[in-house]
Amino acid sequence: MPVFASDMLSSVAYAPDEILLALSLSGIVALTVSPWIGLAVAVVILVIVLCYRLNLQAYPSGGGDYEVAGTNLGTRAGLVVAASLLVDFVLTLAVSLTVFASYIGAMFPDLKPYRVLIAVIGIGLVTLAGLRGSWATRGLLAVPTYLFVGAVLLTLAVGFIRVLSGDTPEAVTSDFLALPGSDEETLLTGFAAVFIVLRAFSSGSVALAGVQTVATAVPLFRPPRGRNAAGTLLVTGLLSAIMLVGITWLSAVIGIKFVARPEEQLVTGSGSPVGDFDQDPVLGQLAQAVFSGFPFMFYVVAAVAALVLLVAANTAVEGFPGLASRLARDGFLPRQLASRGDRMTFSNGILLLAAAAIVLVVATQARVPDLIELYLVGVFLAFVLGQAGMIRHWTVRIRTLVTSPLRRRMQLNRLVGWLGLLLTGLVLVVVLSTKFFAGAWIAVAAIAILYVAMGLVRRHYSRVDAELTPEADDDSARTLPSNTHAVVVVTAIHKPTLRALAYARASRPTFVNAITVAVDEDGAQRLQERWDAMGLPVRLTILDSPYRDLNGPVMDYITGIRKRTPRDLVIVYLPQYIVGRWWENLLHNQTSLRLKTQLLNVPNVVVASVPWRLSSFHRARDQRNRRVGPSGSKPTEH
Amino acid sequence: MPVFASDMLSSVAYAPDEILLALSLSGIVALTVSPWIGLAVAVVILVIVLCYRLNLQAYPSGGGDYEVAGTNLGTRAGLVVAASLLVDFVLTLAVSLTVFASYIGAMFPDLKPYRVLIAVIGIGLVTLAGLRGSWATRGLLAVPTYLFVGAVLLTLAVGFIRVLSGDTPEAVTSDFLALPGSDEETLLTGFAAVFIVLRAFSSGSVALAGVQTVATAVPLFRPPRGRNAAGTLLVTGLLSAIMLVGITWLSAVIGIKFVARPEEQLVTGSGSPVGDFDQDPVLGQLAQAVFSGFPFMFYVVAAVAALVLLVAANTAVEGFPGLASRLARDGFLPRQLASRGDRMTFSNGILLLAAAAIVLVVATQARVPDLIELYLVGVFLAFVLGQAGMIRHWTVRIRTLVTSPLRRRMQLNRLVGWLGLLLTGLVLVVVLSTKFFAGAWIAVAAIAILYVAMGLVRRHYSRVDAELTPEADDDSARTLPSNTHAVVVVTAIHKPTLRALAYARASRPTFVNAITVAVDEDGAQRLQERWDAMGLPVRLTILDSPYRDLNGPVMDYITGIRKRTPRDLVIVYLPQYIVGRWWENLLHNQTSLRLKTQLLNVPNVVVASVPWRLSSFHRARDQRNRRVGPSGSKPTEH
Repeated sequence: MPVFASDMLSSVAYAPDEILLALSLSGIVALTVSPWIGLAVAVVILVIVLCYRLNLQAYPSGGGDYEVAGTNLGTRAGLVVAASLLVDFVLTLAVSLTVFASYIGAMFPDLKPYRVLIAVIGIGLVTLAGLRGSWATRGLLAVPTYLFVGAVLLTLAVGFIRVLSGDTPEAVTSDFLALPGSDEETLLTGFAAVFIVLRAFSSGSVALAGVQTVATAVPLFRPPRGRNAAGTLLVTGLLSAIMLVGITWLSAVIGIKFVARPEEQLVTGSGSPVGDFDQDPVLGQLAQAVFSGFPFMFYVVAAVAALVLLVAANTAVEGFPGLASRLARDGFLPRQLASRGDRMTFSNGILLLAAAAIVLVVATQARVPDLIELYLVGVFLAFVLGQAGMIRHWTVRIRTLVTSPLRRRMQLNRLVGWLGLLLTGLVLVVVLSTKFFAGAWIAVAAIAILYVAMGLVRRHYSRVDAELTPEADDDSARTLPSNTHAVVVVTAIHKPTLRALAYARASRPTFVNAITVAVDEDGAQRLQERWDAMGLPVRLTILDSPYRDLNGPVMDYITGIRKRTPRDLVIVYLPQYIVGRWWENLLHNQTSLRLKTQLLNVPNVVVASVPWRLSSFHRARDQRNRRVGPSGSKPTEH
Repeated sequence: MPVFASDMLSSVAYAPDEILLALSLSGIVALTVSPWIGLAVAVVILVIVLCYRLNLQAYPSGGGDYEVAGTNLGTRAGLVVAASLLVDFVLTLAVSLTVFASYIGAMFPDLKPYRVLIAVIGIGLVTLAGLRGSWATRGLLAVPTYLFVGAVLLTLAVGFIRVLSGDTPEAVTSDFLALPGSDEETLLTGFAAVFIVLRAFSSGSVALAGVQTVATAVPLFRPPRGRNAAGTLLVTGLLSAIMLVGITWLSAVIGIKFVARPEEQLVTGSGSPVGDFDQDPVLGQLAQAVFSGFPFMFYVVAAVAALVLLVAANTAVEGFPGLASRLARDGFLPRQLASRGDRMTFSNGILLLAAAAIVLVVATQARVPDLIELYLVGVFLAFVLGQAGMIRHWTVRIRTLVTSPLRRRMQLNRLVGWLGLLLTGLVLVVVLSTKFFAGAWIAVAAIAILYVAMGLVRRHYSRVDAELTPEADDDSARTLPSNTHAVVVVTAIHKPTLRALAYARASRPTFVNAITVAVDEDGAQRLQERWDAMGLPVRLTILDSPYRDLNGPVMDYITGIRKRTPRDLVIVYLPQYIVGRWWENLLHNQTSLRLKTQLLNVPNVVVASVPWRLSSFHRARDQRNRRVGPSGSKPTEH
C-alpha cells in the first residue's frame, strides 16, 4: 500500500529544510549540527514505527490513536485525539500543497510569486479528484511514490559517490555564508543552544506526521490487515529514516544553506549580501548540485517530489471518511456520516476540510514553517495520547499474567511505549513552549473547539437516545388510534389533486375530507361548482380566510379535528410536484412546504406527500440518462 | 393618504439639483434658464396628474400602468411595464436613501465622506422596518410629509418676502461663478443648447416618479378608492408643482449654484477655484440662505427632508407586495407571492429588492445623478406604455358611442392622454439618446432580463396548467389502486419507529411491512432479536447492503414491489424528528430526507412523514411562548 506511505515519505521533501531553518536562527554553525539532528529524527522515526507496529497489531480496525486513547484512557482522551486528527487532515492538505508550490517554484522560477495561488489551486484539484472517487485503491498512485524513493536514493548515491571520489558537488548556496538570525535567541548562549537544537529536532520530527495516516488506513490493506500495515510501516519508516539522514548529511557535506530570511542572513563569499534571493527546497538544491552537469535529473527529482506531495495530500481526502464515519458511529459527528455509502455527506465534509486548508494557506501566505508549527501540535498531541494509551494497554495486560515469555514481551513493548511517549512528549513540549504565541495556539484552539463541538453532538445524541428508547413492554405499536381522518388539501382541481383524493380514499380512512381555503369568494364558488360538476366522490369543505392567509385556516381546521378527537390519527395528503430543474422548485411546493412544516408540529398528524412528476422531470431524467448512457443509474419507469 | 404622496413630494428635495446640474455642463447661464425648466416640469406634472386621475378612475384596482397597458395593449406591453415598475421599486429605495445621505451630510459635514455607508445603512433600516409590519396604515408616517410641505412652503414664503423687501438672502454659492463643464457638449452651439435644455428638463422630470406609487397604492385608500386616490394625486401634484417652481425661481434669484464638478467649475468672485468644496443640496442651500440669521430653521428643513425621504423609501417596500401579488396571480412570478398572507415569501422579495438597491448605491458610489438616469428609464417607460394604453382605452370606448356629451368628454380625455404620451415620450427619448451608454443601458438591461424571466415563469406555469388540467370525465379520483402496501423504514427500535408502525397499521393497508438495512450483520442480528423480544406486530424484513449503502436497498425493495404489482399503492412511513434548534437539523433526518427525495421519483409511491417532536422542540417552543407572552402565537398542545 505505497499510497498511504506517500504522506510519510513525502515529508523528506520538507523536513530537512525545517531542521536547517530552525538552526539558521542561531549562531550555531548549522552544517556541523544538522546531520546529527537528522540522525536523531531518524531514530525517533524508528522508535515510533516500532511503537505503531504494536498499536496496529493490537488495534487493527483503523481507529489508530483515537481508538487506542479512547479504549485505554477514556472517551475524553479519545476525543482529544479525534479533534487533533481532524486538524491534522486539514494541515496535511495545507502543508503538502504549500511544499508542492515550492517545488513548482524551484522548477519554474517565474511562478515563484504565485505560490499562494498555486497551493490554493492544488488544494482545489486534489479535493475535486478525491470527490470523484477513491484513488487510493488504484495502483496508479503508487507510481509517484516508488519514483520518488528511487529518485531520492539515486540522488544520494550519486552524491556520495561524487563526494568520495573527491568531486564534491557545488550547490548554489555552497559559497554563501549563513549569518545568525536577528532573533533574540542569538543573544543567549549555553541553554539557548540546547533549546535551538531541540527546536530543530522538533521541527524535523514533522517527518513522523505520516505514521498516523498509515495507522488509519489499516482497513484498506489486504488481510491480515494489521500485519500487512505493520510491514508497510516498517519499510516506510526505514526508507524515511535513510533518506532523511542521507539528505541532511549530504547537504551538510556540500554546504547547502537554508535560512529563515535569505536577504538578511545569506552573504556571498566576499561578504556582500545576496539580496533578493529565493531559496529552493533543500532536496531541490541537492539534486541541482549532484546532477550539476545534467540538469534534466534535477527536474525529475523536483517533479517527482511535487507529484508525491499531491499523492500525500490525497491521503488526507481519502482518510477523512474513515475517521469521520468512526466518529459518527461513536456519536461525535452527525450520524449520516456513519455509513460510508452516503457519498454526498462525505463530500460536504471534504469540502469543509479543503476550505479550512485554503484559509490556512492564504492566512500564512503559504509559509511552510508557520504551517508546520500548527501541524506538529495536532500530530504530536495524538502521538502522546496514543502512546499513553498503549502503555496503559500493556500495563493492564501485564497485570493478568504472572510469569511467562508473553509477559516479558509485553514488558518490553511497554518500555518501547515509554520511549515513544518520552520522545513525542518532548517534541510536543518544545513546540508548545517555543511557539505557542507565535501560532501554535491556533491549532490548540481549533482542537479545543472541535473537542467541545463533538462533545455537544454526542451529548445531544445521548439525550435523544434516552428520550427515544422504549421500555421493553412499550405497546405503542399495538395501541392503534381509534379512527383515521384523511384530509386532502385542495388548491385547484387538477390531476395531482385527483390523485391525492384517490390515494387518500385507497387507504380506507374512517373519514375523508377535502378542504380548500377561500382567498376570494368568486374563486371558491367556481371551485365548488367545478367540484360538483365532476362528481368527485369526496365532500369539499371551503374554509374562510379573512386575512387572505392560506395556511392559517388549514391549521385551524386540523387542530380543530385534533381537539374534538384527540385519540384519532389525522393524515394530511399534500400534492407535491417533482420538477426537473432546480429553479422550478422556486415556482412550486413553496406554500405546501411551509404548511407541511407547520402541520408536523401538531401531535397525531401525519403528512403524506403525494408526488406528481411534471413532464419537465421526465425530460430532465431522459437527458441525464442519455448523457450517462444505458450503464448509468437505472431509470425509474413512469 | 399622505404617506404615498411622500414619494412624489420628496422629489423636490433633489429634482431642482438635477436641473441645475444638467445645465451646469453647458455654457448657458443657468440662473436665467432654470426657473423656466422648473416651470416646464411643473406643467408636465400637472398634465400627468390629470392623465392619472383618469387612469385611476378607469382602473381603480391598483394595477396602475401594468393593468392599463396589459388590458389595452396586450400582455407583452403589460409585462414591460411590470418589469419597469420592479426596477423602479429598487431605484426608489436607492435614490431616496442616497439623497437622504446628502441631507445628513448637509447637517453634519463630518459625515460627508460616509455617504455610501449612510445610504446603505438607511436601506437596511427602511427594509427592516418594512419587514416588521406595514407602516403605511399608521398615521405616524404622515407627519413628516406634512412637516416637509410646511417647511418648504415656509422657506419659500420667507425667501420671497425677503427678496421683495430688498433683503435678498445670500447663499454660500451666491458669490461663486459657475464655469461651463469640460464635457464635449460645451463645444457645440445652437442645437446643443436645445439639447442641454431638454436634458435638464428630463432630469427634472424625476419629480414625476412618485405618481405611479400613488397609482399602485389605490387599494389601500378608503372607498371610493379611485376618487380618493385621484384627489390625493391632484393635491400632491399641485403641491409638487408649486414647490418645484418656487425652489427653482428662488434659487435663481438668490444665485445658488449646483454643478457637476465643483472643484473644476466653481470659482470665487476673484476668479480663483474654490478647490475641495462640497455642495449641499439646493433645498439645503436655500434654507441656509433664507434663514441666514436663524440656522435652527436650516436644520429643521434638512431634517424634515431627510425624514420624508425615509418615508418615500418606505413606500417602495410597502408597494412591492401589491405589485408582486398581482404579477403572481397573472402567473409572472412564483405563485406563493399571490396570497398576501404569506409574509415570509414577500420578505424574501423585499430582501432581494433591498440587496439590488444596495448594489446600485455602492456601484454608483452614491452619486445621485447616475441613479436618476436609471430611475428615469423605468419610470418613463411605464408612463409611455400606460399613456398609450389609455389612448387605446378611450379610442375603443369612443368607437361605441355615436354622439353624446360623454363622447366629447372621452375625446378630451384622449387628447390629454396624447399630451401625456408626447411629454413622457420626449423625456424617455432624451434620456435614452443622451445617456444610454453612460448608464441608462443598465436599466434597460435589467428591465429586459426581468421581462424575459417573467415570461419564462408564465410559460412554465401555462405548460404545467395544461399538463395538469383534467378532462371533465377524468375519473382518476374514483379509480382506486387495488391494494395498499404500507412500508415502515426502521433504523432502530425506538419510539418514533413504534409510532410509525402504529400509524401504518392504523391506516389498515392490505400489506404492512417493516424493513431495515443491514449495514453490518451483528447489528441486524441484534435488531431482529430485540424486535422479536418486543413482540412487535409486524414482520421485519432485513435488506442486505453489500456496499454499506443505506438508501439503495430500500429503493430496490420499493421498486421491487412496484414491479410485481404496478397497480398498487405503496405508502412509505418515515419517522421525522422535529427539533427545537436549527443546528439539530444537521444531526437528524438527513439520510431520510434524501431517501424521501428518491422515493418521490418512483410512481405510485406516497411518502408519509411521521413526526416525532424531540424534547428540545418543546423547550424551544416554551421559551418562545414565554418571550412572546400569552398573547403570542397560540401554542400547540402536545
